[in-house]
Amino acid sequence: MEKLEVKSSTHEYKIMIGEGVRYTLHQYLTKKYSSILIITDDKVAKLHLDAVKESLANEKVYVSIIPAGEQSKNIDVFYQLHTDAIQYGLDRQSLVIALGGGVVGDLAGFVAATYMRGIDFIQVPTTILAHDSSVGGKVAINHELGKNMIGNFNSPVAVIYDVETLSTLSDIEIRSGYAELVKEALISNESTFNQLMNIRLNEISKDELKKHLSFGIKVKAKIVEEDENESGVRKYLNLGHTLGHAIEAELSYGKLTHGEAVAIGLLFALYVSNKEFEVDLPLESLLTWFKNNDYPLDIRECTSKKLVERMKSDKKATNKKIQMVLLEKVGKPTVKDFDDEVIDSYLQSFMEKVIR
Amino acid sequence: MEKLEVKSSTHEYKIMIGEGVRYTLHQYLTKKYSSILIITDDKVAKLHLDAVKESLANEKVYVSIIPAGEQSKNIDVFYQLHTDAIQYGLDRQSLVIALGGGVVGDLAGFVAATYMRGIDFIQVPTTILAHDSSVGGKVAINHELGKNMIGNFNSPVAVIYDVETLSTLSDIEIRSGYAELVKEALISNESTFNQLMNIRLNEISKDELKKHLSFGIKVKAKIVEEDENESGVRKYLNLGHTLGHAIEAELSYGKLTHGEAVAIGLLFALYVSNKEFEVDLPLESLLTWFKNNDYPLDIRECTSKKLVERMKSDKKATNKKIQMVLLEKVGKPTVKDFDDEVIDSYLQSFMEKVIR
Repeated sequence: MEKLEVKSSTHEYKIMIGEGVRYTLHQYLTKKYSSILIITDDKVAKLHLDAVKESLANEKVYVSIIPAGEQSKNIDVFYQLHTDAIQYGLDRQSLVIALGGGVVGDLAGFVAATYMRGIDFIQVPTTILAHDSSVGGKVAINHELGKNMIGNFNSPVAVIYDVETLSTLSDIEIRSGYAELVKEALISNESTFNQLMNIRLNEISKDELKKHLSFGIKVKAKIVEEDENESGVRKYLNLGHTLGHAIEAELSYGKLTHGEAVAIGLLFALYVSNKEFEVDLPLESLLTWFKNNDYPLDIRECTSKKLVERMKSDKKATNKKIQMVLLEKVGKPTVKDFDDEVIDSYLQSFMEKVIR
Repeated sequence: MEKLEVKSSTHEYKIMIGEGVRYTLHQYLTKKYSSILIITDDKVAKLHLDAVKESLANEKVYVSIIPAGEQSKNIDVFYQLHTDAIQYGLDRQSLVIALGGGVVGDLAGFVAATYMRGIDFIQVPTTILAHDSSVGGKVAINHELGKNMIGNFNSPVAVIYDVETLSTLSDIEIRSGYAELVKEALISNESTFNQLMNIRLNEISKDELKKHLSFGIKVKAKIVEEDENESGVRKYLNLGHTLGHAIEAELSYGKLTHGEAVAIGLLFALYVSNKEFEVDLPLESLLTWFKNNDYPLDIRECTSKKLVERMKSDKKATNKKIQMVLLEKVGKPTVKDFDDEVIDSYLQSFMEKVIR
């Protein structure tokens, strides 16, 4: 089992990565809680809820199950979870456990952050993608007009990552998760990026997966320790996300997974970087790798104009300038503001020439 | 003008109390904001919005106006304000100004706390009651099942208190505000409490009011500096609030003002304290003072059983025990947990004998 520690602005917390840790969850409760609410989705519940409940047999445990999928990350489900928490009688000494992927983690984390002005929560991620969202304290729900627009910075008291739960992942979920791992390699480490470009996702071994996850979490943890509230280096983690979020919102969440949308965003970030800095980033090899691994790259039902509109209302935008994370080279990210027209023109040629 | 400073866990902020400060608001902007959203209600807008906008003539200013009253502190208005903020193009460098009473302050503060995971906000309180809510960083909206159940701790970057705006307050609002001032005296200072018992609210002078406000804010500021997240002494500020919140919720918010409900809660706290500690707190003189100043004390449409149910789901409750702030003597608060039946029996006799 691997153990990492992250310092947030309010407290330190442990990240445990290992096989079967979901069966020993009770060991990681840092204090006696008056009650525990497990928030999970209907898909994950079928697979892992019993094990987690068993591990908490000596606790007063309640469960709320939401429909799986990004659509659940909305204000109505958020309010319903508050209703559940009140009706179950959760108090300020209660704990929320987020059992699931990024959607469950973001949503349950935001419920915990706002229930009675904040109670403890633990992340139990069950997807590869959630290695990213479960660390760093970003919790949120979506607004119809933008992804993650309503939220807080609120770090969990622990992250319990059972890699066994990843064996049930679908190909789509593996793809989605690996897009973020590729991103973490792109912003930090060329040799890891090159290693990733040499794997095929349908042949990946458990040990490789564990190694990649641990790599991704370390990149993430290091950055959020340095800049929790995203005033500086944390922005680099948004590589691929400006366009990625816009695509997700424009397709109204769920048509592409988060990671799949980010994959297209990564290609666009490399494309723009090449143009802006006159460099030669591995756009072609990344494109090939995405194709070989069946990433869907077709966004023809979106217009560049609408995507630019979405990008303008992104959280990273300032004074309505679109902010993009670019790469001067692999491992060297930077941030740049753009006028709409510039991005629109880049996006049109990108959609016509690169991913068509 | 009086100037106070409060240290929150994240930053220090100033509280300015003076006449006409709403005209000079721009002086208290601590940095250049990309845009400003003033959130206010339809009553306050008519009286003070123009002055505030004028003072911000050199800024990019947007306005959202909500219906006056506690009913606006709900999830729908919260979401609508996020919609406004997105549509106005607010970004992470924007500022929210809460211009109004406690409802506007709590709601706008929570919108600011959650918009793109948090942007700056300034409190510009326009009621006496809001001297309490504008300091200390408690922001929230109500859930149908409980007051202030969904919220954050998030301190403003400044509190600008223009006492001139208080001259337009109705009798009800003056009563509501003074209930919190009486509470602050009860938990901290017997001689101020005695002074308050000698005034009549319809004869109060501007200077007296300023003195009382400044007293109340100092009591509040001292306590929240010591215990921002309410793990200890901050609980004392809830004197009268366990029953007060239950009454407000049971009458479905707005029938009694917050302060009027707290007034009944204060009487109940003194009543229970007298029984529990066998002391002789000034219950009779406070009751007389409330009656002389036209506080509505009739809650016969509530049953003790339902109120006890509400108290059990209060945020201060732990393990479903009802927690009440009591007084060993004036100026010496303490916290005690109760079983339902005990509170129910106290409440029945209180409703029959004291406030009937």
